Amino acid sequence: MHPPWQNSLLMRAARREPVERTPIWLMRQAGRYLPEYRAVRQKMPFAALCKNPDLAAGVMLATVDRLKVDAAILFSDLLVLLEPLGFEVEYAPGGPVIKNPLRMPDDVDRVRELEDAAELDYVLETVRKTRSGLDAGLPLIGFAGAPFTLAAYLIEGGVIRDYRRTKSFLYTDRGAWDALLGRLARAAGRLLEAQVASGAQLVQLFDSWVGCLGVEDYREHVLPYSREAIALVPPETPVIHFTTGNPALLSPAAEAGRGRKHLILGVDWRIRLEDAWRTIGHETAIQGNLDPAVLLGPPEEVRRRTEDVLRQAAGRPGHIFNLGHGVLPQTPVENVRLLIETVQAGTGPG
Amino acid sequence: MHPPWQNSLLMRAARREPVERTPIWLMRQAGRYLPEYRAVRQKMPFAALCKNPDLAAGVMLATVDRLKVDAAILFSDLLVLLEPLGFEVEYAPGGPVIKNPLRMPDDVDRVRELEDAAELDYVLETVRKTRSGLDAGLPLIGFAGAPFTLAAYLIEGGVIRDYRRTKSFLYTDRGAWDALLGRLARAAGRLLEAQVASGAQLVQLFDSWVGCLGVEDYREHVLPYSREAIALVPPETPVIHFTTGNPALLSPAAEAGRGRKHLILGVDWRIRLEDAWRTIGHETAIQGNLDPAVLLGPPEEVRRRTEDVLRQAAGRPGHIFNLGHGVLPQTPVENVRLLIETVQAGTGPG
Repeated sequence: MHPPWQNSLLMRAARREPVERTPIWLMRQAGRYLPEYRAVRQKMPFAALCKNPDLAAGVMLATVDRLKVDAAILFSDLLVLLEPLGFEVEYAPGGPVIKNPLRMPDDVDRVRELEDAAELDYVLETVRKTRSGLDAGLPLIGFAGAPFTLAAYLIEGGVIRDYRRTKSFLYTDRGAWDALLGRLARAAGRLLEAQVASGAQLVQLFDSWVGCLGVEDYREHVLPYSREAIALVPPETPVIHFTTGNPALLSPAAEAGRGRKHLILGVDWRIRLEDAWRTIGHETAIQGNLDPAVLLGPPEEVRRRTEDVLRQAAGRPGHIFNLGHGVLPQTPVENVRLLIETVQAGTGPG
Repeated sequence: MHPPWQNSLLMRAARREPVERTPIWLMRQAGRYLPEYRAVRQKMPFAALCKNPDLAAGVMLATVDRLKVDAAILFSDLLVLLEPLGFEVEYAPGGPVIKNPLRMPDDVDRVRELEDAAELDYVLETVRKTRSGLDAGLPLIGFAGAPFTLAAYLIEGGVIRDYRRTKSFLYTDRGAWDALLGRLARAAGRLLEAQVASGAQLVQLFDSWVGCLGVEDYREHVLPYSREAIALVPPETPVIHFTTGNPALLSPAAEAGRGRKHLILGVDWRIRLEDAWRTIGHETAIQGNLDPAVLLGPPEEVRRRTEDVLRQAAGRPGHIFNLGHGVLPQTPVENVRLLIETVQAGTGPG
């Protein structure tokens, strides 16, 4: 007897089984573009919200209810993982700042090993509360930052422009880089594993900054660690591996989940969906790939572009609709609704 | 009787003729990483330097002499073109700022048409002075910003993060977008044409911000205008079409110069050189593609990576060595020298 969410549209699409229509959820679906969310945030800072499982779960449940999306995602942040590793994160208006960044290769010694994800119990409690409040027909997605993206935050000290420090670190001290990425891979993997144990049905690994790298650097310095993180997720659990910023990385990014039963590759708008499938092979599911900036345009354009993505996915099993990156704060809510309605009205793959 | 520069290594490589070794120059070769350049800049602001043909030519000639690169490039800036179009540019420490940005589609009416590149006579005078001071065996490269990149600067008002305003403009008012890009294409094309008439042997069109777009947007909203700019360059003159940030755009970017005798595609480090050639076909020359961040690493890494790029180019005619983007200000001069020596010591394609 499987719980109903195991047969949800999104879980079936993740397993490349037939679905009546394409499922959709949105990265940053609970975010600043929503007036309800802004109202919550006026009352408390972002970090406090993440650390309050009742409120964090509530924000996501209200969003799912309002938008009628096909999945909830844990309300949390990539950088919560850095605190138990010994770093202090401040959410400043211009973006997060690491108060004690990792500047010298020797600093790697002070990165703690996350032995037990229970150190992030408030995250797991948010998973439990979201799962217990969520419609039993909908799945809950857990997530963590990928080792490279976490390393880039730690080394740059916050919002990143040219990745200069990160690459310089990587080219200068391979030993320190490997030690750092190994620690981050195990931390991310253990957190994902614990989220699954706490009630998440699938998980997404976010490599949001990796597009600054070329293929060799990715293969040599990143791929082994993303693979290590993904390998800690229970084998039956579908994993969404999200990268953005460089379509040439799609093939190696797919290798990070090679051998898994259910791998979904996150794809951004820089490449046509049909070209992405041609590149990685049709046996891998894809999540994507509308440009979030399309939602700043007029409704006709939102509808036209959404239908174009559906047309490119044309009947293939294993398509989860999403944006190629998070919803932009300036996005009109009506356009988000229109996008979701357009996807849900589509006939999708059968 | 051709002047000697017509038979320079770089011009031969640009025409895909045999060369004894791979030619090299660097984007931003005269830049803040050089102590001599910083000394000049301490005496005057960037805008004043660009507007002083004697000093601007002098800066480039001294750089070519010091680095022993295989070409000079006009010392100027992408944004000088915006002034005669009616915009005020301020070079602030955080990057250039457009004082009167283009915010509403109606604003396009106030963009002037550049009827005659003589309005930028100081740029053409810099071309003449650089050419007359340069070794007759070396070519001089002219350049201009591509229509999309210029539009993005105008609309965002300066240094760009998420290209939100630009895309929103593009999705909202096609008529205004087309009018704007047309005006920018003619301005860029006329400037390039005038640079050739003033003494440049080849020209580069810089589309430095275009990597934020997907393939459909590029084809529909950008490619026709880049093609229009390139078409104004005299037919015998080689054109380097530089884009960065999205390898999926290489094929359409090559189309912007389809039918030209000599087209060189600028390629960044996000894709392997051999994959780039496979994508665009071997009848197009390539300029690239070392990651500028490699020059922040140790000398062994600089040498190893440089040799790897040469190995990938392996004997193909039509390779000009360059970085995938400009030299970073923090780059040690010795690493730049080592890169150039490594390329010039290589046997290259014969």
